[in-house]
Amino acid sequence: MSFSPLIRQLIDALRILPGVGQKSAQRMALQMLERDRSGGMRLASALQQAMEGVGHCTQCRTLSEDALCPQCADPRRDDTVLCIVQSPMDVFAVDQTGFRGRYFVLKGHLSPLDGQGPEAIGIPALLARVEGAEALREVILATNPTVEGEATAHYISQLLIPRGLIVSRLAHGIPLGGELDLVDGGTLAHAFAGRKPMGG
Amino acid sequence: MSFSPLIRQLIDALRILPGVGQKSAQRMALQMLERDRSGGMRLASALQQAMEGVGHCTQCRTLSEDALCPQCADPRRDDTVLCIVQSPMDVFAVDQTGFRGRYFVLKGHLSPLDGQGPEAIGIPALLARVEGAEALREVILATNPTVEGEATAHYISQLLIPRGLIVSRLAHGIPLGGELDLVDGGTLAHAFAGRKPMGG
Repeated sequence: MSFSPLIRQLIDALRILPGVGQKSAQRMALQMLERDRSGGMRLASALQQAMEGVGHCTQCRTLSEDALCPQCADPRRDDTVLCIVQSPMDVFAVDQTGFRGRYFVLKGHLSPLDGQGPEAIGIPALLARVEGAEALREVILATNPTVEGEATAHYISQLLIPRGLIVSRLAHGIPLGGELDLVDGGTLAHAFAGRKPMGG
Repeated sequence: MSFSPLIRQLIDALRILPGVGQKSAQRMALQMLERDRSGGMRLASALQQAMEGVGHCTQCRTLSEDALCPQCADPRRDDTVLCIVQSPMDVFAVDQTGFRGRYFVLKGHLSPLDGQGPEAIGIPALLARVEGAEALREVILATNPTVEGEATAHYISQLLIPRGLIVSRLAHGIPLGGELDLVDGGTLAHAFAGRKPMGG
């Protein structure tokens, strides 16, 4: 079967959404056209406004159309702790844990082979942020647990430790609710090395 | 964590898509903003054009911005068979099977309690379509295998059989690739009643 050109164009455009393949895109397009055109129009205008209007927070560099994102603008957050992540999605994940300090969002990780040096990922802006933060005591490096994420964390720790800051890294270990025999060897080795005494 | 207003508005708007919950909507919004703003703008304009431009095919009433949809406009299709379905999504599903006749799309099924009578679902337009189709010999009723779909099929058959048309209904039976003990009793009873002799 073939769709008319406007429907085909909509199906193709929907496929840029993460996790949406040909079949879901068709269902989305036809269902909106059949049942919710006003919702479709609202989505079109929300998309346009966000794509054109959203920039980056001047302080933590997460996505925001205001100069300060809601996290940076909140006076009740703890100014003594700064959590460094690789993307705005990570800010959301970390905030879900109950963390209520400040954030700084890198633009990805160091990757010299791809031309992603310290400037490209925003290290100068991070240093400026750290220097302007008088109350800051601890920096938590929450980059991804990958080779590149570890290298990026190591690079940043070398810059910040000499400034007298406590620099910490998220713990590695077995994830909750999993089964031990499904955990990979490297993670299990980390979990052994980082074992904790149990209270009596 | 809270998102800035434009991002929140985009996340809410994305949730009208079928199968998209809060979490997927967040991932979609942030990922588009981070990595594919031009894709997001393309999607916004495709949505707007489709919501404003797409109407219904004048002949089969499926979704189309042209007066005739690609199926109705195709001169190579078989004019002797007409398949009646409940929605444009069903046209796609039936066409996947290799069917190459014509279609007519009802607006849902008969549901007198909800005020969905024959006019509301498009029976007068169906009769006009059938009367205008000189080559037509067989009508296949492919409404959903639900109580309402069966009732709608029965109602239409009563209108069309007196006009000398062959009226058929899709076969009920066990779906391919399933396990017999997982098939519900009604379906299994239909499969027994409709059993076929095997060639020697």
